[in-house]
Order: sequence, then C-alpha cells, then structure tokens
Amino acid sequence: MRIRPYSSLVRPFSRTFSIMSSAAAASNSSPNDFTQPLNKTAHAFDKNDFDAILSRRFFFIPSFEIYGGVAGLYDYGPPGSALQANILDVWRKHYIIEEDMLELDTTIMTLSDVLKTSGHVDKFADWMVKDSKTGEIFRADHLVEAVIEARLKGDKEARGVTEQPAEEEGDKKKKKKKVKHVAIKLEDSVVEEYESLLAQIDNYTGPELGELMKKHKIVNPETGNDMTEPVEFNLMFESNIGPTGQVKGYLRPETAQGHFVNFARLLEFNNGRVPFASAQIGKSFRNEIAPRQGLLRVREFTMAEIEHYVDPTDKRHARFNEVKSVKLALLPKDVQQEGKTDLTSMTVGDAVGQKIIDNETLGYFLARTQLFLEKIGIDPTRLRCRQHMANEMAHYAADCWDFEIQSSFGWIECVGCADRSAYDLTVHSKKTKQPLRVQQSLPEPRVVDKLECVFEAKAFGLQFRKDAGMLKEHLSTMEKEQLQVVKDDLEKNGSAKVQGPDGKTYEVTSDLLSINPITVTEHIREFIPNVIEPSFGIGRILYSLLEHSFWAREQDKARGVLSLPSVVAPIKCLIVCLSQDPQLRVLIHDISRKLRRIGVSSRVDDSSASIGKKYARNDELGTPFGCTVDFASLKNGTITLRERDSTAQLIGPIDTVISVVDQLVKGTIDWQGATEQLDTYSGVQDVD
Amino acid sequence: MRIRPYSSLVRPFSRTFSIMSSAAAASNSSPNDFTQPLNKTAHAFDKNDFDAILSRRFFFIPSFEIYGGVAGLYDYGPPGSALQANILDVWRKHYIIEEDMLELDTTIMTLSDVLKTSGHVDKFADWMVKDSKTGEIFRADHLVEAVIEARLKGDKEARGVTEQPAEEEGDKKKKKKKVKHVAIKLEDSVVEEYESLLAQIDNYTGPELGELMKKHKIVNPETGNDMTEPVEFNLMFESNIGPTGQVKGYLRPETAQGHFVNFARLLEFNNGRVPFASAQIGKSFRNEIAPRQGLLRVREFTMAEIEHYVDPTDKRHARFNEVKSVKLALLPKDVQQEGKTDLTSMTVGDAVGQKIIDNETLGYFLARTQLFLEKIGIDPTRLRCRQHMANEMAHYAADCWDFEIQSSFGWIECVGCADRSAYDLTVHSKKTKQPLRVQQSLPEPRVVDKLECVFEAKAFGLQFRKDAGMLKEHLSTMEKEQLQVVKDDLEKNGSAKVQGPDGKTYEVTSDLLSINPITVTEHIREFIPNVIEPSFGIGRILYSLLEHSFWAREQDKARGVLSLPSVVAPIKCLIVCLSQDPQLRVLIHDISRKLRRIGVSSRVDDSSASIGKKYARNDELGTPFGCTVDFASLKNGTITLRERDSTAQLIGPIDTVISVVDQLVKGTIDWQGATEQLDTYSGVQDVD
Repeated sequence: MRIRPYSSLVRPFSRTFSIMSSAAAASNSSPNDFTQPLNKTAHAFDKNDFDAILSRRFFFIPSFEIYGGVAGLYDYGPPGSALQANILDVWRKHYIIEEDMLELDTTIMTLSDVLKTSGHVDKFADWMVKDSKTGEIFRADHLVEAVIEARLKGDKEARGVTEQPAEEEGDKKKKKKKVKHVAIKLEDSVVEEYESLLAQIDNYTGPELGELMKKHKIVNPETGNDMTEPVEFNLMFESNIGPTGQVKGYLRPETAQGHFVNFARLLEFNNGRVPFASAQIGKSFRNEIAPRQGLLRVREFTMAEIEHYVDPTDKRHARFNEVKSVKLALLPKDVQQEGKTDLTSMTVGDAVGQKIIDNETLGYFLARTQLFLEKIGIDPTRLRCRQHMANEMAHYAADCWDFEIQSSFGWIECVGCADRSAYDLTVHSKKTKQPLRVQQSLPEPRVVDKLECVFEAKAFGLQFRKDAGMLKEHLSTMEKEQLQVVKDDLEKNGSAKVQGPDGKTYEVTSDLLSINPITVTEHIREFIPNVIEPSFGIGRILYSLLEHSFWAREQDKARGVLSLPSVVAPIKCLIVCLSQDPQLRVLIHDISRKLRRIGVSSRVDDSSASIGKKYARNDELGTPFGCTVDFASLKNGTITLRERDSTAQLIGPIDTVISVVDQLVKGTIDWQGATEQLDTYSGVQDVD
Repeated sequence: MRIRPYSSLVRPFSRTFSIMSSAAAASNSSPNDFTQPLNKTAHAFDKNDFDAILSRRFFFIPSFEIYGGVAGLYDYGPPGSALQANILDVWRKHYIIEEDMLELDTTIMTLSDVLKTSGHVDKFADWMVKDSKTGEIFRADHLVEAVIEARLKGDKEARGVTEQPAEEEGDKKKKKKKVKHVAIKLEDSVVEEYESLLAQIDNYTGPELGELMKKHKIVNPETGNDMTEPVEFNLMFESNIGPTGQVKGYLRPETAQGHFVNFARLLEFNNGRVPFASAQIGKSFRNEIAPRQGLLRVREFTMAEIEHYVDPTDKRHARFNEVKSVKLALLPKDVQQEGKTDLTSMTVGDAVGQKIIDNETLGYFLARTQLFLEKIGIDPTRLRCRQHMANEMAHYAADCWDFEIQSSFGWIECVGCADRSAYDLTVHSKKTKQPLRVQQSLPEPRVVDKLECVFEAKAFGLQFRKDAGMLKEHLSTMEKEQLQVVKDDLEKNGSAKVQGPDGKTYEVTSDLLSINPITVTEHIREFIPNVIEPSFGIGRILYSLLEHSFWAREQDKARGVLSLPSVVAPIKCLIVCLSQDPQLRVLIHDISRKLRRIGVSSRVDDSSASIGKKYARNDELGTPFGCTVDFASLKNGTITLRERDSTAQLIGPIDTVISVVDQLVKGTIDWQGATEQLDTYSGVQDVD
C-alpha cells in the first residue's frame, strides 16, 4: 500500500515531486559512477555562495517578499524569467516543431467532474499531522522520517561511527524540518527496525503512519507535544466558478487532463490517424502541506507535457532509427530490486532490443529527452534514467522511467516518461459516453468470433429497474474474456455475479440473459490508443541546470560564474566601455541597437563600476560574451570580444565582432570558429 | 458614482473587459471613418461561417466540452495555441528584447494582503441580482440594459420606425441575455428617460440599480419573477494556501501587482536608475458573473503587461524621435464629451506637442503599440485610440488611452495605456514600510525649506495611547502643503483636525505638537517613480485578428480564408502531393524534414482528399504557403509553391523553393521577391 497512490502511480510526474525514491536514497551510501567534481575549479560547491548569487542577481526570490513571503511560491526575476523562456523555447523547437506535435493551451481552472473522473478528487492527497497543542502542521511521512533519521544519527554518534560524507549530503538534500540528534545508542534490533522503516517510508498509509508514531513515540521534536492522528489533505487548490457556489473547480495539478478531454478534437485535427502527440506548456498547482526545498517543491510551477497516442498493438516509432545510438545511463528496476544503484551505459537501441525499455516509442522519447537535457546544458555525467519498480507503477502502466538529475539535493526526478496505456481515455470516455477511440479501415475485412448478450428485456428491466440500462450497456461492452466468465457461470450455476461500473455487484440469472457465440465480419478496427507521456518539471530542470553551471574562478572563490550554454543564457552579450566618456557611451548604445536588430539579447552596463567588476557581475548572470569599447574603438573602429568561461579576448572591427557574436549565439560557430575570424587580444587584464 | 470604480478606474485594463464604452455605443448610430468592407470579397462577413471554421479547425472551443463546458473558459487547439504563441513571440521581441525590458514571471496565486493593499479585495466587484424564485443569476447592469433596450426596440416597432443596420449590429455585439421585444409604444417622456438611463448605465451603484429595477418594474424577462436586491460579487477566485485555512489567496486579476511588489529588486537590477520597464506575460483570472461573449469576456485569460517607471518630473522618452511620425487614429476626450466619435488622424509627435497626449513616454508606447498591432495583422482602418474621459479615470491618473479594435462585437478595448502616477508603489510602500523609491545624487547639493514636527512626546503618548506612534509617523511624513495647513490651524485655533491613515480623524492641540520651518541641505533627491502601463488582452487581440483576417473566395462563399500574416500564422507551409504514390510520400516527408531543420513550422497533408480540398482546408487554417509535389518532382526535381491569398503558383528546384519559403517566412522577401527567384506555374488549377 502506498500513501499517495495517485500521485506516485497514476501520474508519474508527481513522482518527480517527491524528493527522492528509496532507491535514490540508497545511492547516497553506496558508491556510484557520478562522483565527478561538481565544479570547474578546486573550490568545492558552496551552496551558500550559490544561493547568494541567485538571490542577488534576481534569478528567483520568494513571492511577495516585501509582505513576508509564502512557502512554496517563487517569483522569477529578469534572468530567471529569460532562462526559463529560453529553456521553453528550446523545448518547443526540440519537441513541438521538430516532431509536428499538436500544441494545446487549456485552462488552469478545471471543472471538478473532470478531476473526479481522473481520480484526483479522491486520491491526490498527502497525510498530515498537527501538534496537539500548537497546531503546527507536518507532513506525516516527513516527520516520521526526520525523527527516525535523527535517532539513527544519534546512535551512530554514540557508537563512535564517523559519518560518511555521502550520508551527510543525503541529509542536507532533504531539507525537511531539521531535527537535532542526541548521541544515544540504540539496541541493534531497533536500528534494524528503523532502517527497514525508512526504506519503505513511501509505502505507509495514513493509519499506518499513525500507528508508527504511537509505537515509536514520535512527537513534535521542538515542543515535545503529541501529534494528532494523520488526516488526508487533498493537494489541489479549490475554488468556485461563477457566483452560484454550485460549480466547483480546482486549479489543475497537471496539464494532462486538458489533453485527454480534447482527444476527439485532436484526433480529428490529425485526420483520424495515430500515432500523433499533443503538447502543452503551462502552470500547474499543488497545495503542498509544508514545502521546504526551494524550487524543487513548490505550490505553483511550470510544466511541459507531451501525450503521444499510439496503437496499443504497435508501439514502434517511425524515427527510432535516428536515435538508436543515443547512450543513456540506465538504472533498471531489477538492479534496484537487488538493492543496488549501479548504472548501465547503453544505447537506446540495445535497451529496447533487450526489452529493458518496453517499446520503441518509449525508447525514442527517452533518447530525445537525453538530447534535450544535454542541449540546454545539463551535465550528462549527473543524469540518469531510473526505471520505476513494479510497486511504484499503476497496475495498468506498461513501463515508466524518470530522468533524475543530481544536485546538492541528491538525485531529483525532473522528467517522467511513462507508458500510461489506455487508462485516461477509457475513464473519460466511460464517464462522458463520448467515443475517445480510433477507427481504422482494415486492409481486408476480417471474420471475428464474438460473444453476444441477448436480454429478456422485460424481465431484466423489472429485476434491475433504474440500473437496468446501465447494466445492459456494461455487459454489452465487456471484453470478450470477461464475458466468457459470465457465460460460463450462467451455464454452470444458472447465475453470475457481475461488478457494475458503479462498483456494486449484481447477480444476473440465466432466465434474464443468455450469451451466445456469433461470427462477425469487421471492416473497421476500433481501439482506444495507448498514451506515452513525457512530463517535464521545468523549475526543477532550471534549478539543476543552475547548479551544474555554477563554479568559482580558481584565483578567487568569491568570483562565481554560471557557465550557461549560450542557447539558454538569459543575456547573450554584455556591452561595456572602459570609461564614462560620452563618445564611448554613444558607441555602446549603437552596438546595443545593432545587436537588438539581429535579435541578440544584450545588456549595456554603463555604470561607473570598474571593468573587472562589470565582467564579474555578468559572469554571475551567465552572460557568455562581452563586447568592450575603449578609445581604440573611436580611433580604429575595433572592439574586443570576451568569452566568459576562459576570459579569452579577441579583437576586430565592430561589425565583424557583431557578426561573430550572432554566429556564436546561433551556434553556427564555436569559440574556435570565432578565433578564426578575429585576432587575439591581450591588452586588458580580466581583473577587478 | 461608478459601479466598479476599481476596475474601470484604478486598473485601466479592466475597462477593456467591459464590452463597450458609452462613446463607443454612440458610434454605432453615427457614421464614422471606418466603414471599410469587412472582407476581401463581395461576400458580407458571416459570423456563422466564421464561427464554424474556428470550431471545425480547432482554433478554440469551450473547455471540458465533453463534460458540457463551463461559461467563460476556453481551450485553444493547435492552430489557436500556435497563433497565440506567435503573437506572444512577436510581442516579446517588439517590447522586451527591443526595449531591454526586465521580464518577470510572478505567481498567479497571490497573497490576500497584496490585493487588499491594491484595493482589489474591497472594490473589484460587480453587482448581481437573482431571480427570487429560480435563483437564476444576472449581472444587474446587464439585465437593466437588456430589458430597457428591448422596450425601446418595441417602442420603435410600434411607431413603425425601421431599425438602422448599425443599431442591429450594436445589439448583436452585446450578446447579453437576449430579451425579446414586444411592439408597445411608450410615452415620449419615458423614451427620453430610458435613453438617458442607457447612456449612463455604467455609472450606477448597486443600490441605484436596485431602485431603477423597482421603479421600472424590471423582472426576469423569461420567468416574470421579481429579482432580489443587487449584491456585490467580488470577481476574484479565492482559495486557501496551505492546509491551515489561515492563509488566504486569490488568483491574480492582473499581472501588475507582481511587478510592483518586486520594484525594489527590479530597481537594484537596473543599477538604481530610472527610467526602465518590467514586463510580464501570463494568465490572469476574473470570476465573471455571467460571461456570454466568447473570447471577449472570459474567466481565465492571457495578458501581457508592461510597467514603465519614470521620473515624475521628466516624462520625456529617449527614443521618442524614432516614432514621432507614426500616425494614430485618435478619439480624444473632448470630442467624446461633445457626444461625437469623429476620429483625428495625427502623428504622435503632433499629439504630444499639442498636449492631446499627456507626455512623450505615453505617446511613445501608443506609437509602438500601433506598430505592434499592425505588424501582427490588425487592420489599421479598424483600430482607434480612445482617450478616457475625466470621469472614467482614477483621481491620480494623468492620462489614459485604450486601443479599441472593431469587430462584429463593435469597438472592443484590447490594449489599455495608462499613466498610473505613483499610486501603486505608494500604497505598497506604506503598507509594508519598505522603501519603493529612487535615490538620485543631485549634481549639486540644494537647500530646501521644510517643515519639522516637534512632539511633546510624553503628553502626546498619553493623549493618543496606542495610536500615538502611527499618528507621529503620519504627521512626520506628510507632504509640506498638507503640513502647512495643520501648522496654520494649530497657530490660529490652538488645535487641528488630522485624518489618520486609518481613516479616523484625530484632534491635535498645540501643547502636543509644534511645527517649525527648517532649512535642509540635500545631496540626494528621492522620489517614487510614476508608472506608465501598457496592458494587453491577448485573447481579445487574437479574436479580433481572426475576424480581420477572415474572408471568402469570390467564386465560392463556402471557401473561407484566414489571411493571417506569415509572422503569426500557426503553420507557415503546407506540404502535399498530387497522388498517393509511395515515392511522392517519401519526398514530402523529406521536404517536411528540411523545413523543420530551418525552423519553419510545416504540415504534411498526405490524406486521400483532393488537392483542392487540401488547399481549402489550409486556407481555413491561415497557412500562407503550400508546396505541392507531383510526378514532375521525381522527374525534374521541381515542386510548386502556392500563395494562399492570390492562389498564385511558382515552380522551381526543391531546395530553391525551400530557401524561398524560408525568406518569405522570415520576411526578408515578399511574394514579389519570390517571383524573382522562381518561375510562374499554371499547371494545376486551384479548385476542388
């Protein structure tokens, strides 16, 4: 049993919003292949320096900061917004344009009926507990985990065991309510019990968590007060649509349902054919109980979701060949089931060939996603594909893989790729009685053996009254295998028990219904397509990318740099002059205008700060290139061009430099290419 | 008195969400300069044909259509989403990149305190009435208007007056609850009273509307039941943040407050200098009482807002010269006050020079917005700038202009450009005690005469107790002019009445407070900047653009065309072949791949439909170009290129045609330029 079955099973993306899986947790205490240095210098990654830069340079800050802020809500400032817009622009080109996907923009405000059908109204919840006196609220599983972890830590200290740095990192990463540990030695059997408890912390129901809290005397670590019994808290923000109070709405917790309810329209737009994909970028909302991990667990976030509709009997992909040699770092489920976290580097072609990845379409999207994440600058050595274990997936799901990205918070699920089978379209179709199916002409008619229900209409109606119609339809549309069971029962026992779509059980007798084999010639094949869903948490990817891009100059730890690739860098080019001379100021605004005209986002810094200071500020913003104007510019018409990571400088005529910047930003040349068009320059030291 | 003062005064954009101003209404019965034909053919604009295309081609449809839909919520399908994305892309380049604006992405979920300060919690409301028996809900002003209009119509019919087509259009445009009219002649005095009532329908308070309903016996026209007294309904969607129920939030009704609360951070990012602008694109929400006008009045919508911060004493704009010759169709307030709607075509330079437009910065944005709307394809002859009349504006606003676009719904406000003075920053700064000000070093120190408050601290405290601190701060930060009044009163009467920030009046006596003139030398000038706000309703612009782009082929009224400019067209190029031959199919997918690689969004139609049918389908989608492959393509390596509006065709080698399409889409050549690179083709008729 799982605590939040809906979020962790039915909607794979939600998995990306739980901080880490037990498999990922295990990886912290075992060596793995991803022990690459975090930085480009000898300086260790300093989370404080990093956070300070993000705040100082206004990448993102708590929303309504001047009003004291609210947990789990963040505003993106100019560099954060531009970085996000650029990531989304790459995403749109990489998926929507390149793959001819059908883009949608559906509403955030969602009719409650839709989310009732999808299961969110009933199951999209976490368990919370309150301090019985102060009323302070905790997520039940987080509290149990934090207290037990602190006790184990205390035990280790009492035993004189030195902590592994990896475990330290595991702790830091959680950033849950910090619980202080006391050095108290525990019984060996208790240690064992605690460790087993932690390993399955995601699997307890609310009542089970309540039992654990009683058994292990878990109280509020700060006040010492008892906690209340766990109660379920639905994570959707609720509101009323219109003034009557009778139409309930929720802010969508994902964009996916907006695709599914429009399936019939999408199919028609695609001339009735599958496969095809719909895609949507937009905000979703989850009213987290107590969010405490920065951009990694937020109440409002941007998602990008693809729903790819395929024939369930043919999950090949027409363009699979183009990606089959892409290498992935795989963590398959059987490896995890052995308690290991060793990664296997393998081409997607081999992985699909060996059935490690279920089918070509899923493999295709995994490969394309690997390419996307590399393109925007995610360090491939800190990226892995973790397969969901059987107990993580919904019963109907064929296969599910998460792209997890390593940051100072550990391995975080940032993209989920799931084969969701026909689940969603089936439930919406049943609820609304709208056909959400594909009809395909068969190349040749085919003869099919079927079972046909023949009802004694009057007697059936008298027996089941208001339920008769529903039950008739249910029986008539049953799968052949199920219907065969009913038929056998009727023939053997004279009656059969049938579970209706309302969940109730009905007893049908052989005087009311007979089931007969018939032969039908079919000209058309009808099926509900399966859905393969790659789902992206943009905020998590953006945050991970910032961590991967951050390092400090060897000569000065305080000089932080964000080595963002130019395709996503918020600003592409800094324009500065060496003095405050009015003639030079005219020139830099002239260069700025020229860059704007060719669509290159630039930033003039004409403040009185020193040139070194200006470069340092823009290194912190991740600006890859810088044009510097000095008196030689007036005399010779030349400017210099600086590259952020190497601080190398080139010099050339203004228009040539502008053209080189354009080529660099478009990616048609790299820095090596730039050196072929411009001369090396060593006139100005890159220091403060 | 106005019904919804906040929305119509404080937030100019809300004006764009009321269907029409009285001035605009007047224009329907008087001739104006914009009587251009709606279409490119002799066929009159047919709203039914138009709506059918938008729905059939999945531009947009009611959200949760298969669940029955909800009024005021719409989903954009693939062409609608792509059109919106393209409009926003042009917007981002035109404003954010070109003007170096600071982009923001702030949360939709907004802390109630923020919207309390801004005035939305108290004032962002409409008046609603209920049928006393059925409970059916109406917006009070809309019901009164609809019933009185129907009576006037009945009167005209009874008098045998033929209706003006223009008035018909005015009626249709409102699309309020349709009220049937009965031919009953009214007293002349009643007609006059009704007409005067309609002219000021926007100006009544709720209680006044209640009085009018009683006086004129306005009941539910369908049931004949009495209506309840009007009650205020706040238009914001409300929700709770977190599980405690104690943190209230609203979905933002505009993006603007997200800019203002971040002003201090933005200013720092801009090195402490003004002018600069912040910009944001995002969803906003208004829980309309009874939305009934398609995309023009919706509960969830995309806005694009700019907040430009300027020195209140210097509203010049550095780039004003670049736009001063842009012509605007102006409807200034004094013309409207005379009851006229004549437009004046004038350059923005002249309008600012003659003080018709208040200042250069406002004029700059009006000109830039005119250019933006023309760039995306809005018909300039159906675009006007209407100035707000004095009674439409907030007391603090300096000037306000709306871009109104004419469609079958009449003149609709789509962009608001307001000078909001220092209002917003002032109220947030007062509430949070955070300085939202600009500090400027003065070139030379200046000596200033000020007034200083000297309190008898102990006596003052005893007198005002808990209010003493608040009152002291209030007096100490008063404007000099106000303080002078207090000083005069104290000296004349020995006491003065002071209104506190809490709205209460306090009596201060001269034994508690003396106010003395002092001389201060200032080195720094401190001010709260003024805000100029261009605010765009993207859905309204998108809808108007679709109407402006729609026409039907002369030879066949059923062949609708959307002449969207290629820069915003959802798909740039159609790729089809003349037969289902497998070799040709390979070729069209090859062309599609080449177009994708250069970033041109294309669509393959390899269905079995006729070539004419395929062209017609894509004309309805607004696809400007089409490449056609036939057997000559295999033999000679040539394909044809079709232009949507003229149906003209050219022919050339595949790669040349692809290059021409690229140039056409980028806008570096027009169709004339294409004819210079390719040969004319007349082999295939453009018919079904």
